[in-house]
Amino acid sequence: MFRNSYDSDNTTFSPQGKLHQVEYALEAVKQGSAAIGLRSKTHARSTGELATYQKKLIRIDDHVGVAIAGLTSDARVLSNSMRQQAMSEKMLYGRPIPVARIVQGISDKAQMNTQQYGRRPYGVGFLVIGQDETGPHLFEFSPAGTAFEYYAHSIGARSQSAKTYLEKNFESFENGR
Amino acid sequence: MFRNSYDSDNTTFSPQGKLHQVEYALEAVKQGSAAIGLRSKTHARSTGELATYQKKLIRIDDHVGVAIAGLTSDARVLSNSMRQQAMSEKMLYGRPIPVARIVQGISDKAQMNTQQYGRRPYGVGFLVIGQDETGPHLFEFSPAGTAFEYYAHSIGARSQSAKTYLEKNFESFENGR
Amino acid sequence: MFRNSYDSDNTTFSPQGKLHQVEYALEAVKQGSAAIGLRSKTHARSTGELATYQKKLIRIDDHVGVAIAGLTSDARVLSNSMRQQAMSEKMLYGRPIPVARIVQGISDKAQMNTQQYGRRPYGVGFLVIGQDETGPHLFEFSPAGTAFEYYAHSIGARSQSAKTYLEKNFESFENGR
Amino acid sequence: MFRNSYDSDNTTFSPQGKLHQVEYALEAVKQGSAAIGLRSKTHARSTGELATYQKKLIRIDDHVGVAIAGLTSDARVLSNSMRQQAMSEKMLYGRPIPVARIVQGISDKAQMNTQQYGRRPYGVGFLVIGQDETGPHLFEFSPAGTAFEYYAHSIGARSQSAKTYLEKNFESFENGR
Amino acid sequence: MFRNSYDSDNTTFSPQGKLHQVEYALEAVKQGSAAIGLRSKTHARSTGELATYQKKLIRIDDHVGVAIAGLTSDARVLSNSMRQQAMSEKMLYGRPIPVARIVQGISDKAQMNTQQYGRRPYGVGFLVIGQDETGPHLFEFSPAGTAFEYYAHSIGARSQSAKTYLEKNFESFENGR
Amino acid sequence: MFRNSYDSDNTTFSPQGKLHQVEYALEAVKQGSAAIGLRSKTHARSTGELATYQKKLIRIDDHVGVAIAGLTSDARVLSNSMRQQAMSEKMLYGRPIPVARIVQGISDKAQMNTQQYGRRPYGVGFLVIGQDETGPHLFEFSPAGTAFEYYAHSIGARSQSAKTYLEKNFESFENGR
Amino acid sequence: MFRNSYDSDNTTFSPQGKLHQVEYALEAVKQGSAAIGLRSKTHARSTGELATYQKKLIRIDDHVGVAIAGLTSDARVLSNSMRQQAMSEKMLYGRPIPVARIVQGISDKAQMNTQQYGRRPYGVGFLVIGQDETGPHLFEFSPAGTAFEYYAHSIGARSQSAKTYLEKNFESFENGR
Repeated sequence: MFRNSYDSDNTTFSPQGKLHQVEYALEAVKQGSAAIGLRSKTHARSTGELATYQKKLIRIDDHVGVAIAGLTSDARVLSNSMRQQAMSEKMLYGRPIPVARIVQGISDKAQMNTQQYGRRPYGVGFLVIGQDETGPHLFEFSPAGTAFEYYAHSIGARSQSAKTYLEKNFESFENGR
Repeated sequence: MFRNSYDSDNTTFSPQGKLHQVEYALEAVKQGSAAIGLRSKTHARSTGELATYQKKLIRIDDHVGVAIAGLTSDARVLSNSMRQQAMSEKMLYGRPIPVARIVQGISDKAQMNTQQYGRRPYGVGFLVIGQDETGPHLFEFSPAGTAFEYYAHSIGARSQSAKTYLEKNFESFENGR
Repeated sequence: MFRNSYDSDNTTFSPQGKLHQVEYALEAVKQGSAAIGLRSKTHARSTGELATYQKKLIRIDDHVGVAIAGLTSDARVLSNSMRQQAMSEKMLYGRPIPVARIVQGISDKAQMNTQQYGRRPYGVGFLVIGQDETGPHLFEFSPAGTAFEYYAHSIGARSQSAKTYLEKNFESFENGR
Repeated sequence: MFRNSYDSDNTTFSPQGKLHQVEYALEAVKQGSAAIGLRSKTHARSTGELATYQKKLIRIDDHVGVAIAGLTSDARVLSNSMRQQAMSEKMLYGRPIPVARIVQGISDKAQMNTQQYGRRPYGVGFLVIGQDETGPHLFEFSPAGTAFEYYAHSIGARSQSAKTYLEKNFESFENGR
Repeated sequence: MFRNSYDSDNTTFSPQGKLHQVEYALEAVKQGSAAIGLRSKTHARSTGELATYQKKLIRIDDHVGVAIAGLTSDARVLSNSMRQQAMSEKMLYGRPIPVARIVQGISDKAQMNTQQYGRRPYGVGFLVIGQDETGPHLFEFSPAGTAFEYYAHSIGARSQSAKTYLEKNFESFENGR
Repeated sequence: MFRNSYDSDNTTFSPQGKLHQVEYALEAVKQGSAAIGLRSKTHARSTGELATYQKKLIRIDDHVGVAIAGLTSDARVLSNSMRQQAMSEKMLYGRPIPVARIVQGISDKAQMNTQQYGRRPYGVGFLVIGQDETGPHLFEFSPAGTAFEYYAHSIGARSQSAKTYLEKNFESFENGR
Repeated sequence: MFRNSYDSDNTTFSPQGKLHQVEYALEAVKQGSAAIGLRSKTHARSTGELATYQKKLIRIDDHVGVAIAGLTSDARVLSNSMRQQAMSEKMLYGRPIPVARIVQGISDKAQMNTQQYGRRPYGVGFLVIGQDETGPHLFEFSPAGTAFEYYAHSIGARSQSAKTYLEKNFESFENGR
């Protein structure tokens, strides 16, 4: 394989302004078995690929969970951090943590790993689903440190075909539960 | 591609006195979709490229906002830091933070990342727009750690054509709102 | 041998999204002599390869033990850490530590070694067997930082043939002791 | 380009006893647009190149200012440090800081960056002009960590022709203001 | 000599799951002059090679001593650490330190040097002989961080022929003193 | 130029037992303009090369001064450190610092830079001249961390011809002032 | 010269179990001018090579001194550390420090420099001579971190011929003073 000189360190931009290590981490996500998420007006659902025996869904709190694609050990560490956030929110403010805030928390963690020397980016992507005061939510967390909200989304291996299906049939799910 | 021996480390000058990593970070900004900013005598406005679905505008405070071009995760981290500055100014001095000062804050952060070992430069540029006691302001923040004030400016992909348009039509905007 | 440029550092992803150092650590496990574990409805058992003189079984507490495959010195260090966890659980809560929790503890330790600069992954795998309030347990701990529960499992050299045997004869063990 | 093996690290002398990184930083100064300084018996003046739009003059205190050539972001950071020195002198001793002392301060900062691992030299040169109890002063600060006093001096691109002019006409300025 | 790319760092596994630096440290042990240890039912004895002038036996406490093979300076440092352990045991618990525990102590020290960046493994092996409440003991300590108990053992150069002799004649020593 | 593999790091001996970085630092001294020192029975004198405009003599205290050859910025930093030593001696013991002790101080500083990772050796040599209770003194300080006393000495470019002259005419100076 | 891949770092063993950096440091000792030491029943003597002008003997205390071969600056630093040990022994226990103990002290210092990353081994060897309660002593300290006692010894350039002479004539010195 062609050796690119800029890709072995998070802290180095290539001349094209790319961070190759981050892109390789995204590759690790792409190679995990697929996870699919959907949000109707009243509910948010997520599921892992049916044909896999790997644990794909992790419970964070009564109102939040994640579907993972990528390195299982990184997923465990990140989900533990999410549980601590959720617990601390409950203790301090007596309420379930807003889904957007808990996603923000791990995104900040992930961004730091793309900028500082001495750690690699996380090698796992999440579909974070949850229900809070503002309704149901579906976020995609990526190891690049970004988090976007979706109505329906899919990550992992062969997620493209899942996305195509979701786009075609989205309207039929919209009011479902 | 030709391998330049001086470009993989922030802390290394090339024989021509260049910091290549900083220039590659500017490249990351150039590849983000364009952001445009304008300042009339009474108002400052900014907008992201119309044809993009990416979130381009981030609110910092009632009187300040930024339009971004480049890495979204870096933008989130820097804008969080700006929000904290704004909040702390309000608590300490009971006033909205001056736009120039908030821009100064992130420029210092960015300069440190171009000089110290162990971190990469930020890969995002901002158009910071705001209104304070001294009137409307439009700043360009660049990951090189510089900040300049403009009447009208554009950053990101194809920003040159936007600049050409702005130059030709600037007078017609000048008194607008 | 073909030199892969991405495999000498834990903190570097290859372009295929792999962490080669972690896979080489798993190789160290594969080359240790085999360890076998079984869980019936009421008991969990583990044993090391019969033909080896190496110490293969380590006692952690009255209700937990491990069978090892890989580097003996890493095994000693990790099992010491498990003993401390067990002891501290007893002192704080007056009960034997749940098997799942003690496995979680060393998995977190192992994951950190796959992400941070300055340490190598552990070069040893465990079959952790134990009995707690929720019944008998059999976990596989791997240096990648993962831990999965099994009814019957085998790690180390030639573990594949042991697994084949276990699969064929599992039902006959299921109610045994 | 010819690759010199000794030039990518501050902490490395070449066999000829040179610190190449420092010389490349001086190159960054040479490529900034020119700055010119003059000292008559009663006044010190400095100016930036006329044809440039870049901010070239920075006010430090009522009695001290700098003209810059090189990286703008480094200039901002160094001039902030000078302002803090000036302010602290005023608070502690109730007097404007002597020009020589403020130049000494940034020279020490710059020297450290040429000797310690982990930072690059500053990429900016200053003409520091000021007036204190001992009369008007004109210093050249260079990123090598040196500071020399002059009657008339010029730094940056094409500074040589400026110097030639200054030498020829120096006497006519000497009593001017 | 053939250059192996994985052998210059403790913290790097080769693709075969080997830690080459540890194996090279074992080589340093093999090149030291031989040391021989024996344990009968009532006594444990150790001796260094007869034809060497190097100091081979080091006293730790009244009941424990070591025979060394490898780097003398590393041996001195490790034996000092053993003396401190023995002394601290005496002060805290008023008893001679159990031989197994003192061997555990240096094994932990040695394992850390095989896993963390910044130190090399120790380049010395010990035969630790001692007598405690549980009878006479003979341990082999290796720089890999392992410690095994033996009835008779030999380390260092040409230790294999010593082992062969010991195996053949072991029974005649068993009840000796 | 021939690339020597052992010369880019202070902390590395070449197979011939040389520290190349230290020798290159001495080269930096040799390329500075010459400095000359003399000691008669009652006085010590030092002077810089006549044809240079560079500041060559630095005052440390009433009774001690240095003549420099090499990097001016390193000289400033070291001489500041000498001034602090002199001042602290005066405050603690109420006497001018003995010349030998002040030379010892900077020699220790310089030696550390030749042994520890992360800093380069100083690139400057000193002739330290002074007068204390034991009479006049002339020391040569070198960046290798050594300090020797002389009756007459010279360092820097073309110092050899100065030394030849001094040797020939030393007796005529001996009683001079 | 043939480039050995294992010799530029203290913390790396070669496949033969050698620490090349330590051996190169020993080379630096071998290239210093020779030092010779002798111990009779009542006295210990040491001397440096006659034909050298370099300072070869350093006084540590009334009863201990060293003769050096190798880097003078390292010798100064190590001998200062010995003086501090001697002084501290006098203050704490009111007696001259035993020679063996002071040699132990610098040997430990030297061993650490052969094992930890970030420092080079010392480049100097000592003949430590002294007189204490147990009679006269002659130790050789080497930068490998070892210390052995001798009746007569020599280190440095051409020390072999000195040793040959000492061996032939040792008996005639034995009762001398």
